Amino acid sequence: MLAARKGQKNVILIADNIQITNRAVAEALSEMRPQAIQELAKQCEAAGADMLDINSGPLSRDTENKMRFLVESVQEVSDLPLLIDTANPKAMAAGLRANRKTVIINGFSLEPAKIEAILPLAKEFDADMIAYLLYPDSRVPSDSTQRLNIAVEICNEIRKSGIDSNRLIIDPVIVPLMWENGTAQASEVLSVIRMLPDVLGFPVRTVAGLSNLTSGKGNREKKLIAEQAYLPMLAASGLTMALLNIFHHETVRTARVCSLLMRHSLSQTAAIFTWEEI
Amino acid sequence: MLAARKGQKNVILIADNIQITNRAVAEALSEMRPQAIQELAKQCEAAGADMLDINSGPLSRDTENKMRFLVESVQEVSDLPLLIDTANPKAMAAGLRANRKTVIINGFSLEPAKIEAILPLAKEFDADMIAYLLYPDSRVPSDSTQRLNIAVEICNEIRKSGIDSNRLIIDPVIVPLMWENGTAQASEVLSVIRMLPDVLGFPVRTVAGLSNLTSGKGNREKKLIAEQAYLPMLAASGLTMALLNIFHHETVRTARVCSLLMRHSLSQTAAIFTWEEI
Repeated sequence: MLAARKGQKNVILIADNIQITNRAVAEALSEMRPQAIQELAKQCEAAGADMLDINSGPLSRDTENKMRFLVESVQEVSDLPLLIDTANPKAMAAGLRANRKTVIINGFSLEPAKIEAILPLAKEFDADMIAYLLYPDSRVPSDSTQRLNIAVEICNEIRKSGIDSNRLIIDPVIVPLMWENGTAQASEVLSVIRMLPDVLGFPVRTVAGLSNLTSGKGNREKKLIAEQAYLPMLAASGLTMALLNIFHHETVRTARVCSLLMRHSLSQTAAIFTWEEI
Repeated sequence: MLAARKGQKNVILIADNIQITNRAVAEALSEMRPQAIQELAKQCEAAGADMLDINSGPLSRDTENKMRFLVESVQEVSDLPLLIDTANPKAMAAGLRANRKTVIINGFSLEPAKIEAILPLAKEFDADMIAYLLYPDSRVPSDSTQRLNIAVEICNEIRKSGIDSNRLIIDPVIVPLMWENGTAQASEVLSVIRMLPDVLGFPVRTVAGLSNLTSGKGNREKKLIAEQAYLPMLAASGLTMALLNIFHHETVRTARVCSLLMRHSLSQTAAIFTWEEI
């Protein structure tokens, strides 16, 4: 599996920057001109991304062409693994077909339409798949017990459809701190990440969208502090991959320190630390 | 117990600033003039300290007077709980006698002299006691298994002497990153904190000396980043108290965010978050 193959890093960083809500991306996509998207992809890689999430939005018109354009544009300039991030199954299929490198489906949930459309794609393309711990109607569970129950149901669905559960990457769903129970949810997400391997009975990989934590109104500096405090907590709880704004350099640096502070579990020989590594 | 009584904070912050290696403290102690020490104690409290560690050094001459002077000086200006931090049992006894508020013994280990001299003091003064996970000859264990074995032995010693094990606060011993196996040890300490309650069979409190992580040569800014990344990892692993340089404002702020992100476990009603809290 991908995470295990990497080996040198504890927390894999996925850039969430290539998204349709970014005006430069939206314009480039609308005009089918790859430059802005390719520039962004290269910047993400330079900033420390290990993978790139392509959040295309629904792509309701000209779906296949648009998605193929996005994937091909990025893969012309970067060899990083891609996450195809769309709720539109047609767009997902087009992205998976266009892909020439390593790809992850982002994502799956117990929503009936997803069970019907996404699972067959995961099987056909033999791809890793992110599954969100959400109710079938897309509501966010309010505590860790509910999330763990949903994780078990997701595993059952995946096995029923003949997909190897090692293909699974679970997203426990970080919600904004500004939500009524935001801080409580932040704590529940840590528990879920810690408990998932025991509950599911195998070392399931996990991913979390860090930018969600601070979305909404708020002072930028404080948001960065919150992000920088929460990421190490996620890492210490066992998080495999973090989806984040890769241009938050301090957060990326914090992630690098976390990986250093956990690296010996990946190697039997204790590496010598130097401050140059930070 | 102390930690449980606090209730509003997840990570209790103990200032390690009042120490004999600080020249102003050494001079004030040598001249028995309280002002500099009292100024420092007030500054620590203003900077966010929940407790104050008084690291007196060995106090080999005029032991009782010096320790009484230290404790009285600080308690004239601060009501914060104190940690009496000395390897000299006579100084420890004098500090405990001088104390008029809440006090913690810092610290105990399996060193025969400590078993002989410190345990009776803990019993006599009915005080909380920090125990270091060190070998009887003060060597630092190299992995989590060794540390956990030592924790079990410490519990046995404490029970043998008739002290309630709830009096115990365990320090897993953070070592400098610069040590040959420094990053590996950082990771082991996280495991130990996470596993201790299960291994010992009760929710034992833990404390860790964060300043140790970055002691030795190195760039100050990088040291702060390392500290700010490691503290949330310790918090997420269940650390009760952190001993740190309380004038590292960014680290204190990070600790405050960690407490916010874990606070719901302390209260059944989900508190509403606002950015003013950071």
